[in-house]
Amino acid sequence: MNNSTKIVPRKLKGFWELMPKEQILFSSLLNSIEQVFKNNCFVPLDTPVLEYSEILLAKSGGEVDKEIYRFTKGDADMCMRYDLTVPLARFVAMHKDELSFPFKRYQIGKVYRGERPQKGRFREFYQCDADIIGSDTLSMVADAECIALFEKCFNALGIEVVIEISNRKIIAGFIEEINKNDKINEILIVLDKLEKISLEDALTELKELGIDNENSEKLIKLTKMNGKIDNLLVNLKDFCQNETFKTGLKELEELNKYLISFGAKSFVANIGVIRGHNYYTGTVFEGFLKNQHLAIGGGGRFENLCGYFTDKNMPGVGMSIGVTRLFDLLLQDGYFDKVKARDIDIAIINFDETLNQSLELLTKFREQGIKAECFYENKSFKSKMKEANKREVKYVLIVGEDEIKTQIFTLKNMENSEQEKLSFEEIIKKLKNLA
Amino acid sequence: MNNSTKIVPRKLKGFWELMPKEQILFSSLLNSIEQVFKNNCFVPLDTPVLEYSEILLAKSGGEVDKEIYRFTKGDADMCMRYDLTVPLARFVAMHKDELSFPFKRYQIGKVYRGERPQKGRFREFYQCDADIIGSDTLSMVADAECIALFEKCFNALGIEVVIEISNRKIIAGFIEEINKNDKINEILIVLDKLEKISLEDALTELKELGIDNENSEKLIKLTKMNGKIDNLLVNLKDFCQNETFKTGLKELEELNKYLISFGAKSFVANIGVIRGHNYYTGTVFEGFLKNQHLAIGGGGRFENLCGYFTDKNMPGVGMSIGVTRLFDLLLQDGYFDKVKARDIDIAIINFDETLNQSLELLTKFREQGIKAECFYENKSFKSKMKEANKREVKYVLIVGEDEIKTQIFTLKNMENSEQEKLSFEEIIKKLKNLA
Repeated sequence: MNNSTKIVPRKLKGFWELMPKEQILFSSLLNSIEQVFKNNCFVPLDTPVLEYSEILLAKSGGEVDKEIYRFTKGDADMCMRYDLTVPLARFVAMHKDELSFPFKRYQIGKVYRGERPQKGRFREFYQCDADIIGSDTLSMVADAECIALFEKCFNALGIEVVIEISNRKIIAGFIEEINKNDKINEILIVLDKLEKISLEDALTELKELGIDNENSEKLIKLTKMNGKIDNLLVNLKDFCQNETFKTGLKELEELNKYLISFGAKSFVANIGVIRGHNYYTGTVFEGFLKNQHLAIGGGGRFENLCGYFTDKNMPGVGMSIGVTRLFDLLLQDGYFDKVKARDIDIAIINFDETLNQSLELLTKFREQGIKAECFYENKSFKSKMKEANKREVKYVLIVGEDEIKTQIFTLKNMENSEQEKLSFEEIIKKLKNLA
Repeated sequence: MNNSTKIVPRKLKGFWELMPKEQILFSSLLNSIEQVFKNNCFVPLDTPVLEYSEILLAKSGGEVDKEIYRFTKGDADMCMRYDLTVPLARFVAMHKDELSFPFKRYQIGKVYRGERPQKGRFREFYQCDADIIGSDTLSMVADAECIALFEKCFNALGIEVVIEISNRKIIAGFIEEINKNDKINEILIVLDKLEKISLEDALTELKELGIDNENSEKLIKLTKMNGKIDNLLVNLKDFCQNETFKTGLKELEELNKYLISFGAKSFVANIGVIRGHNYYTGTVFEGFLKNQHLAIGGGGRFENLCGYFTDKNMPGVGMSIGVTRLFDLLLQDGYFDKVKARDIDIAIINFDETLNQSLELLTKFREQGIKAECFYENKSFKSKMKEANKREVKYVLIVGEDEIKTQIFTLKNMENSEQEKLSFEEIIKKLKNLA
């Protein structure tokens, strides 16, 4: 084969792949979040990566977004999932008579969007979702549970977040009040980009949607209100007499009460939180890394998850963490600098003549749950020590014929270069305290 | 939306999806295996599900197997991975100058084969691979480590396996000796199905490949040899004088020695283990559930993993567990019958008027790492108790106004219906001993 033409090994553009050291860190990040989900009694779900196009594109009436990976095989027209919410809706609709409600599930999985690759955007990336789905009704307690869960995920990672919360009904109520319900999605799009465009441009765009200056200014003022929920509720009390608006305030008040019961601490109100998806109908929230205002996830309440698949009303509330993006931010930010991505606690450096005995020691270490490795390849002592250094091994155990004879071993701490002469049992004891 | 036509919710044919209870069991199966990989110092790798077709189809010179999911998007021609080995080869070839060798990686991920769905076969299923890749050379210790690792995975699951081991060079050496090297793949295909066809048919097929009856019978006899490696080596000592054959025996002898050092116990020799893939060049092994002779994985040594991508010689040895199939077998076999797929240790049954206090108790439980749930939906006491039963909750805590007043709670054990009156601190103490 050596004379044949080689294919250049490369991965698809825009696809994410980590080197082992980073992968260890990323896996432990996912594990921490999964542990929080489990501790809060969410059950795992693992839907296929592929679904019938008819299912995944139900929302758009079968119209294909150019971002979506769609293809046919045999007579099946299928797509790769672009989020974990539509597969959840499909699953819940299929099994609505078998599942227990509220159904609390989490899913950590890859999703696919063939958009133009750019910094921080990938075509394959992980989503980390937890949702609570009700049958017919779902208490506002569930909204609080999702937001508290979101906070707990970051607590578990030792990361400070701020969660900004709103209720869609507040802005929607005001829009209803000024008789612009027919333009609500267009208005929300303008409000969602207030931070990026000038006040003047915003007013112009709202005017084009038929809203006069006075109401536009009022709407923008509303959108910019934020702070402690209690205070905000007082300030908004007489802002608008619309019933939807009032319901929004009432829901926010109830949410606040439950959030406190759930022990949540890092949340504030911000009426400007819109969230892109127009399926949100009540609570919406967005999480930011504290001091950076970088969005790393969010979620909200949707009144009818499975509307495309069943007549049964199934309200839900969910949270999602963009873990791929989060990981990249944390990596840049030095979050992992102090974490050693250590996969080896002790490395045995054997010589040719002590290979078998070294493997036996290796086996005993591993039986004790100690992450031990033996550099058994036929290489020089020097290159084995170099390897131990490169791999950031904590301890090295040199096993020559003398050590086998005397059963006294030299344990070298690679971090401070200290050496100790110990029996095997003493070494085991020392290393078990490491873990 | 209620009046619109509904789309029937369904998943793609041949795609595997578990209900939450089974998913909890499957996830814990994967976790156990992953823990073994980690303890043995294998590092995680997570390659994209999609690869350039040129890469995935390198082996077949770009020819598309009809099982493979292949499609184009923009100007990229891509496939969904059908195993985890080719992506590993691509990754190692790409990063050969950065990685430490031997490179020990594991990957647990979904792979795709669009074959006709049938019992025990899925179009999307999990593979669980661990491989050791060398640079230029790789010691026979690595082969032993992989087989020992395979055994440890099943030990960790409490499942008895038998691992049947051979070395390809033994049969290959004999074929070389009778000058049939040019037909080796065809001969291996016949030998691989000896258990399924009659001796007569096998002899006929071998005759068609130009092997006379005497040599065919000798070859079949060789293929049927099995038992303890020590004994087999003695029996085969004078079977054939070919050098490749002798190398095969020598490697098997060396492997045996290292396997013992690694503490492996459940292995025997079986020269009839062929393994389908013709990239295996030395050690081959296959694992079976004891008493059932159902194959649940295996692996072997390949001399040149990255040959399509680089001139550098990179030998490897790997193991793979067919976890999707294994799970189905275990499920049928009642392996999980005694395992409770419990996601809730204690359920709080609140009343409307004690909702907030119940949520506070719930939060305290969870802060202690106890899997607690509160059935906070506005339902009857009876339906909440029914739910607790259905969910196989271990304890139920009824929180009414009296309990809040006295701070003495009734803890009901749902398994034996015993009730105790306890303070909250006593309950926490009791439940922490559960975990």
